Amino acid sequence: MSPLAPGATIGILGGGQLGRLIALAAARLGLKTHVFSDDPDSPAFAVAAHATHATYEDEAALEAFSRSVAVVTYEFENVPARAAEIVSRHAVLRPGARALATTQDRLAEKSFVAGLGLATAPFRGVEDEAGLAAALAAIGAPAVLKTRRFGYDGKGQVTIRPGDDAAAAFAAIGRAPAILEGFVPFAAELSIVAARGLDGGLAAYEACENEHERHILAETRVPAAIGEGTRAAAADIARAIGDALDYVGIFAVELFLVRAADGAERLLVNEIAPRVHNSGHWTDFGAQTSQFEQHVRAIAGWPLGGTKRLGRAVSMTNLIGDAVETVPALLAEEGAHVTLYGKAQARAGRKMGHVTRIAW
Amino acid sequence: MSPLAPGATIGILGGGQLGRLIALAAARLGLKTHVFSDDPDSPAFAVAAHATHATYEDEAALEAFSRSVAVVTYEFENVPARAAEIVSRHAVLRPGARALATTQDRLAEKSFVAGLGLATAPFRGVEDEAGLAAALAAIGAPAVLKTRRFGYDGKGQVTIRPGDDAAAAFAAIGRAPAILEGFVPFAAELSIVAARGLDGGLAAYEACENEHERHILAETRVPAAIGEGTRAAAADIARAIGDALDYVGIFAVELFLVRAADGAERLLVNEIAPRVHNSGHWTDFGAQTSQFEQHVRAIAGWPLGGTKRLGRAVSMTNLIGDAVETVPALLAEEGAHVTLYGKAQARAGRKMGHVTRIAW
Repeated sequence: MSPLAPGATIGILGGGQLGRLIALAAARLGLKTHVFSDDPDSPAFAVAAHATHATYEDEAALEAFSRSVAVVTYEFENVPARAAEIVSRHAVLRPGARALATTQDRLAEKSFVAGLGLATAPFRGVEDEAGLAAALAAIGAPAVLKTRRFGYDGKGQVTIRPGDDAAAAFAAIGRAPAILEGFVPFAAELSIVAARGLDGGLAAYEACENEHERHILAETRVPAAIGEGTRAAAADIARAIGDALDYVGIFAVELFLVRAADGAERLLVNEIAPRVHNSGHWTDFGAQTSQFEQHVRAIAGWPLGGTKRLGRAVSMTNLIGDAVETVPALLAEEGAHVTLYGKAQARAGRKMGHVTRIAW
Repeated sequence: MSPLAPGATIGILGGGQLGRLIALAAARLGLKTHVFSDDPDSPAFAVAAHATHATYEDEAALEAFSRSVAVVTYEFENVPARAAEIVSRHAVLRPGARALATTQDRLAEKSFVAGLGLATAPFRGVEDEAGLAAALAAIGAPAVLKTRRFGYDGKGQVTIRPGDDAAAAFAAIGRAPAILEGFVPFAAELSIVAARGLDGGLAAYEACENEHERHILAETRVPAAIGEGTRAAAADIARAIGDALDYVGIFAVELFLVRAADGAERLLVNEIAPRVHNSGHWTDFGAQTSQFEQHVRAIAGWPLGGTKRLGRAVSMTNLIGDAVETVPALLAEEGAHVTLYGKAQARAGRKMGHVTRIAW
């Protein structure tokens, strides 16, 4: 595959803020974008040269979309497999269908990670109540029961504590095929965002530390308060996963940091996101190349950019729901970089924008 | 006037790279844009939510455009006065019609600047050959004869050296109403880019040093190699001009630096651009707030952002014509920020993009 020609059009499946920020980065590099989304109010439509509003089941629309672009990428991992297959028939899909298949299913994902020899929380597949009982017996409580598919931001999961009614927990997630994961007493939640180029080269940003509130990312801080060995281990994990998926583009690996009584640090892989990631927003203004530009460079087959952090420290704070009302004050804060997604309604739990601060 | 509401739409007259970069900055702040341009291939169309392709004489199109947006701005100073008047009737125009009227006419502009007590090259209005002879007698040669209107990037001007045929020079600029300016033996060409907010507050970037090639900006360097007093004088000039025009938005003042034999530095005002300016491109990546975001903040009535330079030094190099062929190498240069305008044809003299480098 030769690199994308100047002025070519990138197709983006999904029209949320991630698609919007990819489209803006593509425009900075002189590329056009065509956004495909099932939501008529997609924030990405307003910044794309072309927009298709159709469902991910609309095969004719998917075919026309794919034929109109030089490469297709996606902003969310729940692209239906059938849609990915249709796109792949008419266009180059980056990252590929394998990354989607692996990360759409929590059990397949954990099995893949464990198969690379990387540490995870203990896990077991759960198909029915008997299977859940067996898994609980093996893993113990507390544990987290998660649907295998379509979970994000804490949706489709429930914690089972000692003495809890397992059947009720299974009912709570709709008795869907599930995975039971052992509870990890983590010292911190980390993530590492990295890009893998068409030539197999990996460019990882430094690992960052994340705070979640009600399962939604609230803040990212860089550098993470971790040892040098842990920092290197995070990069090794990213490389192993990127290589095994023959990945092209940006991906994020969510990690648990476990600290032993003697201070020894250990990383467990929690989740892989085959896309630009909220915990990588700090790179926009906070690193040499933003994750959005880096993703565009990767899927275009262009050289990857530098990943060095700028400044002594960077923080990224999500503006969720009402928090968007602080924007006037944030705009008045010198050096605060405010990014807003152009969403009309500020509902509770809805990501409206984010602010990046760099300590020089 | 209250500040622009979140998600409001900004109208932009002109669809070139400046309009495109304003539109991208507006999108970062959650705003929509509507671009009006007479060029069907306008680079800004691809990143705007709405596009109108019509001439600047199309009053119905101008009215519909103005009624569809919360505020109108422009990316070029040659917006016809009649178009500005129609827009002003249906929308808020920022910067206002006064800035346009003053800067569209080189004689009005120089007279305005001189009226503020600011130094310029000696100048005289020229209406006919007799007037040119009188002006040459007063100012002497070498001198530069420029059309009063519609000049940019060296177009519409001719240098008259001692012994040259004045009538031929006048013919060369089409015998249009003109201004004769005394030749300034400058040590350097500088500019200062500043924003003035709706509240009258001024936020100036530091003065930068510009290299032109064939009258087109080739490179900008910051900091300029000038004394502290000169640096402050440039900011004072920006403030005087911004206040006198009751300006809202970004503007640039092009300056000549004259250095006496004893090293004393003096600034002459050459030209005012009532818009984001090529010599301000370095602020995008190179300063706390890019000139494009700053312009959007100003015309939205929002607080202005910080203007501090990042890094020890910043350079911005235009990619003109064939130079766009160096893009693959530039993309491989760590920390080089490449911006491309999405223009299909790389003609000689055409600005295709720019690259910003920051020395940390």
